[in-house]
Amino acid sequence: MNTNPSNIMALTSTTSNKKETVCIFGTGDFGRALGYKMIQSGYSVVFGSRQLQPSSLIPKDAEVLSHTEAAQKATIIIIAIPRQHYNFLIPLAEILHGKVLVDVSNNLKLNQYSQSNAEYLAQLIPGAKVVKAFNTVSAWALQSGALDASRQVFVCGDDEKAKQMVMDIVRAVGLTPLDRGSLLAAQEIENYPLQLFPMWKFPIFLSLGLTAFFFFYSLIRDVIYPYVYENQDFSFFIAISIPNRICPIVALSLLALVYLPGVLAAIIQLYRGTKYSRFPDWLDKWMLCRKQLGLVALAFAFLHVLYTFVIPIRYYVRWKLNSLILSQALNNRTDPFINTYSWLNDSYLALGILGFFLFVLLGITSLPSVSNSVNWREFRFVQSKLGYLTLILCTAHTLIYGERLFLNASSYRWYLPNACMLSLIVPCIVLVVKFVLVFPCLDKPLTQIRQGWERNPRHSE
Amino acid sequence: MNTNPSNIMALTSTTSNKKETVCIFGTGDFGRALGYKMIQSGYSVVFGSRQLQPSSLIPKDAEVLSHTEAAQKATIIIIAIPRQHYNFLIPLAEILHGKVLVDVSNNLKLNQYSQSNAEYLAQLIPGAKVVKAFNTVSAWALQSGALDASRQVFVCGDDEKAKQMVMDIVRAVGLTPLDRGSLLAAQEIENYPLQLFPMWKFPIFLSLGLTAFFFFYSLIRDVIYPYVYENQDFSFFIAISIPNRICPIVALSLLALVYLPGVLAAIIQLYRGTKYSRFPDWLDKWMLCRKQLGLVALAFAFLHVLYTFVIPIRYYVRWKLNSLILSQALNNRTDPFINTYSWLNDSYLALGILGFFLFVLLGITSLPSVSNSVNWREFRFVQSKLGYLTLILCTAHTLIYGERLFLNASSYRWYLPNACMLSLIVPCIVLVVKFVLVFPCLDKPLTQIRQGWERNPRHSE
Amino acid sequence: MNTNPSNIMALTSTTSNKKETVCIFGTGDFGRALGYKMIQSGYSVVFGSRQLQPSSLIPKDAEVLSHTEAAQKATIIIIAIPRQHYNFLIPLAEILHGKVLVDVSNNLKLNQYSQSNAEYLAQLIPGAKVVKAFNTVSAWALQSGALDASRQVFVCGDDEKAKQMVMDIVRAVGLTPLDRGSLLAAQEIENYPLQLFPMWKFPIFLSLGLTAFFFFYSLIRDVIYPYVYENQDFSFFIAISIPNRICPIVALSLLALVYLPGVLAAIIQLYRGTKYSRFPDWLDKWMLCRKQLGLVALAFAFLHVLYTFVIPIRYYVRWKLNSLILSQALNNRTDPFINTYSWLNDSYLALGILGFFLFVLLGITSLPSVSNSVNWREFRFVQSKLGYLTLILCTAHTLIYGERLFLNASSYRWYLPNACMLSLIVPCIVLVVKFVLVFPCLDKPLTQIRQGWERNPRHSE
Repeated sequence: MNTNPSNIMALTSTTSNKKETVCIFGTGDFGRALGYKMIQSGYSVVFGSRQLQPSSLIPKDAEVLSHTEAAQKATIIIIAIPRQHYNFLIPLAEILHGKVLVDVSNNLKLNQYSQSNAEYLAQLIPGAKVVKAFNTVSAWALQSGALDASRQVFVCGDDEKAKQMVMDIVRAVGLTPLDRGSLLAAQEIENYPLQLFPMWKFPIFLSLGLTAFFFFYSLIRDVIYPYVYENQDFSFFIAISIPNRICPIVALSLLALVYLPGVLAAIIQLYRGTKYSRFPDWLDKWMLCRKQLGLVALAFAFLHVLYTFVIPIRYYVRWKLNSLILSQALNNRTDPFINTYSWLNDSYLALGILGFFLFVLLGITSLPSVSNSVNWREFRFVQSKLGYLTLILCTAHTLIYGERLFLNASSYRWYLPNACMLSLIVPCIVLVVKFVLVFPCLDKPLTQIRQGWERNPRHSE
Repeated sequence: MNTNPSNIMALTSTTSNKKETVCIFGTGDFGRALGYKMIQSGYSVVFGSRQLQPSSLIPKDAEVLSHTEAAQKATIIIIAIPRQHYNFLIPLAEILHGKVLVDVSNNLKLNQYSQSNAEYLAQLIPGAKVVKAFNTVSAWALQSGALDASRQVFVCGDDEKAKQMVMDIVRAVGLTPLDRGSLLAAQEIENYPLQLFPMWKFPIFLSLGLTAFFFFYSLIRDVIYPYVYENQDFSFFIAISIPNRICPIVALSLLALVYLPGVLAAIIQLYRGTKYSRFPDWLDKWMLCRKQLGLVALAFAFLHVLYTFVIPIRYYVRWKLNSLILSQALNNRTDPFINTYSWLNDSYLALGILGFFLFVLLGITSLPSVSNSVNWREFRFVQSKLGYLTLILCTAHTLIYGERLFLNASSYRWYLPNACMLSLIVPCIVLVVKFVLVFPCLDKPLTQIRQGWERNPRHSE
Repeated sequence: MNTNPSNIMALTSTTSNKKETVCIFGTGDFGRALGYKMIQSGYSVVFGSRQLQPSSLIPKDAEVLSHTEAAQKATIIIIAIPRQHYNFLIPLAEILHGKVLVDVSNNLKLNQYSQSNAEYLAQLIPGAKVVKAFNTVSAWALQSGALDASRQVFVCGDDEKAKQMVMDIVRAVGLTPLDRGSLLAAQEIENYPLQLFPMWKFPIFLSLGLTAFFFFYSLIRDVIYPYVYENQDFSFFIAISIPNRICPIVALSLLALVYLPGVLAAIIQLYRGTKYSRFPDWLDKWMLCRKQLGLVALAFAFLHVLYTFVIPIRYYVRWKLNSLILSQALNNRTDPFINTYSWLNDSYLALGILGFFLFVLLGITSLPSVSNSVNWREFRFVQSKLGYLTLILCTAHTLIYGERLFLNASSYRWYLPNACMLSLIVPCIVLVVKFVLVFPCLDKPLTQIRQGWERNPRHSE
């Protein structure tokens, strides 16, 4: 690079022809896999180990030295040993002084220790710069290259320069570093790989609860009632008929629960006359899991669609239709065509189809790669405008379906109304309140509040 | 870092142990949210405000100073105030000299001002280095961390160094910077968050136009005609029968329109004997919205499939089948099984299924995350080869379905041919022309032209 | 930047106000497109060409000079000419000494030359720093901005600094650089754009093979047998009935083949008593294409669902049902309702629906953007726990469907069992072995082995 003499000094140390040397303490699975990947990416790797004989498992381009010798060779030392053995590092404290120690450890349980492993390490070796990283990646994924799950590597640490050096390694091995701030974030980062869909827990348990409730409700009405009073065995309803009653109910209820917190928030803001007071905690949490609630609702709607499409190939349905025709044929009687009924039937099916179609559209736009390629105005348009349209269509679908049941006395068995009437309560409340909120006398002050206006400004004195 | 003395100087200022201090002018929603996020990411934040009393809303780790004092503390100043108040910065021009001013403002309308806010700011404070950034992110998203919509932050500015510094902040708060070049791009960047699916406008309006046309066409043929001539009320056809006629027609037409511009481009290139003349503007635009056209077509095809699957549970269909059987039973007459008709019926259904299946495959590969993980050869294979196969299957599906209608005189009502015949015009043209273009006598020169050959080289003299 | 005098020196050369000058050899499509994009991103571009007259096609902000003059103006030279003309660079070797040469070339065939283009270039000009990059991007995509396919640019080279400079350019034009290590990787990078779904080849050929086998198998049993013995023409079964028999069989077999290698691996590990011996090569390859196998299985399952849903609108099915009813009506006979049969029928449909639902869920989580946003524990939970549940449901679905066939003697035609019995072999083996492996006496040692325990440690001596 004779042409550019002025930048030689600035670049010499950071980007020399060979990448720097990195030390790894520990020759376990993860240490070896990471070492292998780093060698591939151009780093020199030196392992620090108690056993200095080369093992066939250690990448052949790596050196194996004693911990002391290895640590002296590099600025960055990756501590790939379990937390229980960290105290063997104490005698090395002097050599580790000023070095960057990368804590890659994970625990077996959420919040296993009161202090995160990385903070514990920083406390043991106060002179070192501890950085937490790489704990979200598995040894197997590094080795096989099958990085199907997260490529994101959360990084945190108190020393900016040390963090940058570790993030460079993360990038070099083909992963994406995400700076999570100071070492205080280590606890959260260590908990991350142990989580199992934390945002999905509430929606899934809620939907299971609703499913169980409506299952027993329908069981009593549709299987036990006819068995007791008419001595008919409809137990096979458990396979399809009852699930196909539960699914749309749960789907519609969950969809309404997606839009209920927004309506509640608007009421609270209008009542308080400001947007600067915090919402109650449960409302905040509810608002953050709306996407998950909506997707669970979509799953139930999808099941409802599948259950509906198999209706005509069910033996029970075919047998019932056949016996109807046969009885008509034997009695020489034909049913007249009722235009109103055809209208009701077709429009309820059409509303369901359009509602489901929009629901699928909402689901697709909530895929990370799709939602990441739209701007906020577009995202809000889809999730709010199209979302409400979906809710309206699905509610109308259920209303028209339920209409004949409302009028029909026999639909009350043991004083239990048909389940689909129950499912309409929440959506109708949401839609009515939303409709009221759209009126200018309420919409105008709400818009002003959301733009920062306060009825009783208290905060800026 | 005693081990690496040579790079101390180079790194000291850019990556010290603490990240630098950033100043934010304006304590509105966005300023506060951004300040909060930056403090989380390790920056020191100082707010410049007229009101120096600490407000409960301002992040507690941030300092609040007068504009002058705040500006002196930092190199980067984020201007989180509306454009209308920019002129209050003029008296500060001297202090702002040489500083990096980050314009985060948005407008309320597309092209609201002839000059972009960032350029206006650069003109007001000529000595400052203005960078446009962060305008695509919402305050709410920053605060709640629910960055569902775009994490992309478009950055532009005339000073490379200033732009790099701002892009570092963008990365530090967990967003993805996208360099859009000089400050001339500010207008476009400011328009971006106000856009509502600009690429989708043409496909959606086109499909709505086609839908409206075929709706009235079908209404006349299938509802009004029977009402006038046979006094039959088929108004309920509006709910399902007519939509299920419109959807496949619109889907097939749009799918053909996806492949028409490619065919036109080939003809133009063959005629001109070069690929270096620009296509007419409408063709360029058409080619760029092919993906959107295809996805709208897929949406209509999906609706068609849903409408088709509910056919057997429609009251009208069941009633019609029942009365057919009853009349046969009463007349003691059975229909013979017609093998040809079964062949036609089954193959038309099978073609439709395969066509839809491939169409869904095309749709999946156009998801950003999927199309981003294939190479060009694979992308072209799917979008071109599989795309044409889809078009062929869907056209054949419609052709076989339409066959009995062509032969049937009663399918011409008021001299209007059945709508599905109209829908076949564009796909058949595309397929015939494409078939012609595949012949070696045309394919060979076309391939040569696309590899850069020119019949009358004019450009390199 | 008077405020920060200490970093002026470090930054001057790398991030001055104007980006550096880049030279492009060759004014073909790709050279021009890349030059255009780099000018947009703030670089100065100078073309090296034999023809010094400005052509209308070359971006107007670029200079065109002789190769020698152009090369002197820049540190980075992009070689946008075909490999066949590389030897014209030999006379320029002195000027190119120390420069960064970017090889952007592609070949027409996989492994066309024994030596990659980039290595050939490095050998021709030994004094230059050769970097391979940009070969995965198409000229058209650069020009139109329609970067739908991969934005990833693989970069490799022996000089770290040169590689970093090229990766900066890649980022500046809006693409994502991926460091692939030393120039040895060039061959692989040059092959990448020529690949056509290499991971999908085995799953697709396997599924096509299975499809062909079961097609002829079903053809013999369901079309030829009745034609020979009963003189009935069921040739139209080829359109829907036979595909709807093949699809579930292939789907279930492929799904079982997704889980078979895991079971085999467990047996091998238990037998060897260690996880540190390499699996046989075929098993490694098989394990790496499990995702593709699963997705092909899902495609077949999806087709099966579509074929099943059109059953009630098939002419053949309607005709058969009608003639059944008519014969019953004429004979004045009604079929009794068989509760057991209704149970079997409904539960087999319900199992199929639930299995397909979970299968779709698995498919969605394997989308790159979704699988990238879950952690390893979540990914394994979905792919392993939910995957096995899907396999169990689908196997049960087929078992119940097949039950009546097992008992029915007529289902053996020409001693050929019904195809669905054949399809159950692999899934049942997988499930039985997996069930055995779950027992503590096997599960415990297996878990120990997977955590690194060895029955006969041989590696650490």
